[in-house]
Amino acid sequence: MTPERFEKLKNTLSRRQPDLRVLTDHVHKPHNIAAIVRTCDAMGVAHLHMVWPHDQFGRFSKTASGSDRWVTVHPHQTSVEAIELQKQQGRKVIAAHFSDRAIDFRDYDYTQPTTLLLGQELFGVSDESADMCDEHVVIPMQGMVESFNVSVAAAIILSEAQRQRDAAGMYDKLSLNPEEYEKTLFQWAHP
Amino acid sequence: MTPERFEKLKNTLSRRQPDLRVLTDHVHKPHNIAAIVRTCDAMGVAHLHMVWPHDQFGRFSKTASGSDRWVTVHPHQTSVEAIELQKQQGRKVIAAHFSDRAIDFRDYDYTQPTTLLLGQELFGVSDESADMCDEHVVIPMQGMVESFNVSVAAAIILSEAQRQRDAAGMYDKLSLNPEEYEKTLFQWAHP
Ligand SMILES: C[S@@+](CC[C@H](N)C(=O)[O-])C[C@H]1O[C@@H](n2cnc3c(N)ncnc32)[C@H](O)[C@@H]1O
Ligand SMILES: C[S@@+](CC[C@H](N)C(=O)[O-])C[C@H]1O[C@@H](n2cnc3c(N)ncnc32)[C@H](O)[C@@H]1O
Repeated sequence: MTPERFEKLKNTLSRRQPDLRVLTDHVHKPHNIAAIVRTCDAMGVAHLHMVWPHDQFGRFSKTASGSDRWVTVHPHQTSVEAIELQKQQGRKVIAAHFSDRAIDFRDYDYTQPTTLLLGQELFGVSDESADMCDEHVVIPMQGMVESFNVSVAAAIILSEAQRQRDAAGMYDKLSLNPEEYEKTLFQWAHP
Repeated sequence: MTPERFEKLKNTLSRRQPDLRVLTDHVHKPHNIAAIVRTCDAMGVAHLHMVWPHDQFGRFSKTASGSDRWVTVHPHQTSVEAIELQKQQGRKVIAAHFSDRAIDFRDYDYTQPTTLLLGQELFGVSDESADMCDEHVVIPMQGMVESFNVSVAAAIILSEAQRQRDAAGMYDKLSLNPEEYEKTLFQWAHP
């Protein structure tokens, strides 16, 4: 490893936002998952929680290998368990979801500890998951189709989160705790 | 067709932005193309120009059928031809492209007549295309991966364009000329 490469690893880790996370709720198409993992990395999202039918998890690991090297993926067997974990760890859970109580995605304050929940390609966010979320956000649609591709919706919302956190200077100070920083640096530097 | 549906068609057409376009420069994966078409519709982009190897065009038409009903796709055989057409029609061409002259994508004024050019999945924007473009824009990357998926990059940039145009009231006044409005309404209402 060159010194430049090692600097890049450290610089990337110093910009990670451990209190901004993504939770995919039964999103299952490998190319969508791969695009979401890649977007997480590029937005400084270090942790991706995935509710994924148990027997298919191996299939994902294969497809996303490479892009998932930089993002820690946490598999969960149920949405309830995954959402409750976010709350226990002090993060609000916001669903990207059309509902009567949904607000425009630009009106949410993403500098708060937040997990963004994304729904399944065909069926969207389940009623049970939606009920458990603190907030629902929507991206306004100007056309005939009813929704964006899920990886596209994730990117549009995370881009706004990144903008807000950047404006608040949150990428300029270390947010990972020293232990996670050292552990991840070691893993990245010794693959 | 119900009266509500007819109203929706008219309402959508009245929000179309014919002077905001997308040009895909050899983007070729069907799921990327499909996501881009869908994002165009949802952002009010009525025209998508595609440089596509001639013999593969049929394959795309098949894959995207459905989402491409609401967006007019213009196939082109060469990038030069496609870019020159944009300029002849009075639009600036901006490439989503890393280069020495690239600016942050949020610093471009998208209320101008503009075509956003997107590069190929593996090789990006060619030197020839990049040279012909009026401006290069980049989305800042906070992580280890070097680029976003192309449909994700398109969505992030178009979302900023939509925000600017919305703030300028451009979705509240009819932009299609009466001829295109009537022609498209007829096509949409009589599939
Ligand atoms: C393809 S959509 C699911 C569509 C599903 N038919 C529904 O009605 O929810 C997959 C996921 O992408 C996200 N999504 C897509 N478009 C969105 C939008 N305009 N606003 C917020 N989230 C969106 C949501 O998380 C959604 O569950
Ligand atoms: C996967 S990228 C191509 C990567 C290629 N290796 C390169 O260096 O250009 C495909 C296209 O997505 C767009 N894109 C991806 N990430 C971008 C970013 N951060 N800023 C601007 N455009 C981006 C560009 O149009 C690019 O040509």
